[in-house]
Amino acid sequence: MLNVCLLAPGGVMPFYNRFLTSMVASCNGSMVLVDCGEGTQILLKKLKWGLKNIDVICFTHYHADHIAGLPGLLSTIGNSGRKEELTLIGPPGLKNVVQGLLVITPELPYDIKLIETSDKLVEYIHKDFVLNSMPVKHSVDCMMYSLEVMRRRKFDKNKAESQNIPMKYWNRLQNEEIIEDSGIIYTPDMVLSDKRKGLKVSYCTDTRPLPEIVDFIKYSDLFICEGMYGDDVYAQKVEDTNHMLFSEAADLSKKGKVEEMWLTHFSPALQDPYEFLDVAKNIFKNSVIGEELMVKELKFTD
Amino acid sequence: MLNVCLLAPGGVMPFYNRFLTSMVASCNGSMVLVDCGEGTQILLKKLKWGLKNIDVICFTHYHADHIAGLPGLLSTIGNSGRKEELTLIGPPGLKNVVQGLLVITPELPYDIKLIETSDKLVEYIHKDFVLNSMPVKHSVDCMMYSLEVMRRRKFDKNKAESQNIPMKYWNRLQNEEIIEDSGIIYTPDMVLSDKRKGLKVSYCTDTRPLPEIVDFIKYSDLFICEGMYGDDVYAQKVEDTNHMLFSEAADLSKKGKVEEMWLTHFSPALQDPYEFLDVAKNIFKNSVIGEELMVKELKFTD
Repeated sequence: MLNVCLLAPGGVMPFYNRFLTSMVASCNGSMVLVDCGEGTQILLKKLKWGLKNIDVICFTHYHADHIAGLPGLLSTIGNSGRKEELTLIGPPGLKNVVQGLLVITPELPYDIKLIETSDKLVEYIHKDFVLNSMPVKHSVDCMMYSLEVMRRRKFDKNKAESQNIPMKYWNRLQNEEIIEDSGIIYTPDMVLSDKRKGLKVSYCTDTRPLPEIVDFIKYSDLFICEGMYGDDVYAQKVEDTNHMLFSEAADLSKKGKVEEMWLTHFSPALQDPYEFLDVAKNIFKNSVIGEELMVKELKFTD
Repeated sequence: MLNVCLLAPGGVMPFYNRFLTSMVASCNGSMVLVDCGEGTQILLKKLKWGLKNIDVICFTHYHADHIAGLPGLLSTIGNSGRKEELTLIGPPGLKNVVQGLLVITPELPYDIKLIETSDKLVEYIHKDFVLNSMPVKHSVDCMMYSLEVMRRRKFDKNKAESQNIPMKYWNRLQNEEIIEDSGIIYTPDMVLSDKRKGLKVSYCTDTRPLPEIVDFIKYSDLFICEGMYGDDVYAQKVEDTNHMLFSEAADLSKKGKVEEMWLTHFSPALQDPYEFLDVAKNIFKNSVIGEELMVKELKFTD
């Protein structure tokens, strides 16, 4: 099971009634956070999933509205009793940015591991999470992320027995191990079912819509995507500032065949996103306006 | 007239129902902010006094709960159209801290002027504000501040006429200028009333109660003071962590003969500060529990 929460749907600057966008995902007691603007720790506390188990924080980019909450959050995670290493992942420049921000929280009771993503698609596995990052197009280096929880294949007893696989290897094969014994090679495929659909959530902000995004988000159960403006009259503005319209986010969602898309990163000028929900829905039916602490529980299906 | 607002009364970490302590003062279109924890810009926007006219930001010290909101606020002030220089004042280390934090807001449309306070009492005058800083006792270098708005002396026409002061000098003397003409010296005292009481607000956190604080806050119209814990059972704890009890804040207020004292910087463990209000009131009657966006309008009295 994968629990996902959009902490808030705001872009550019935080307001009392609209905090800044970021996403947290939780699976089997481990949490991954994507982006950490000012106020993120306030929302995390309101969410009540805890802060101590945040193992990984990914950054799309280093504009203040996506990272200014980091020193406060790291400090509060320290106060929560965390002792285990915490991993930060982000585009080139991460080390410099973290070094700068940590000047006000110099003594943390845990280690920080830094992973700078490159200009290619990068996979990072942490516990049950498979994290992928891909560069997108903003005014500065910017990444988008997907988080997947893979589903283990089913053990097929009939298959194992009909091929005379020694029972002593069943468990190891089930754990995707390849075994050689007296010249015979036993592979996991011999005892396991076909691959089963896992769970996938993708998170994308700030960027122009790129063709590569369609492949990257393919078949996501949930796609959280920026919609800086709802009205298509802002087409030139998003082109100039490297952002997206509701219609562009919906178009990506449709092409990417995602299950559901949540709009986020609203411009402070966009007072009522619901006014433009139909613009998105007319292109991609399962478009949803992002709200503070909006949660989705993703479960494996057969 | 001096308008003062306690933006919030929280200490250590921000919560949805209790943001971090900081104070803003406004006089004749200019604003001074003291401390800027995570979420300060959110409260400033809720307050609706504007952000563009924040001319000076003072820092008591550089723990995250007092400064982590700086990059976001500076960025938002930039978005508000400010072009005029903005002054930051704080204890030694200011340059290093600001350099670190500004890594995420590298391009501001205005200049930043840095003033590091020393280990002595320092006066800084900005427009109508007379700012004073004094070192206090915390685990790191820490300052407290007072903001005063001086009151101009009254012009006394009878006094001027009875001493035959040439009318052409009245205006300049009124502006506290000393004038010499044909060997005669004219002083402002010759045309002006006695000094009149100005307006004074003092802000103090995080520190142990020091005897020097009594003099520094003397006759303040408003004294905003930390009260980390309400219950005196925490006496040893505040001693160890360099903080104050409600009773200690009240004792300073009484000795400093201030008009009114607002308690702030409550520990997250102090869930209901009102439970201990009487502890303070029994020592200093005009003790008040700080609340979010609590405002006081200070006016000159005769």
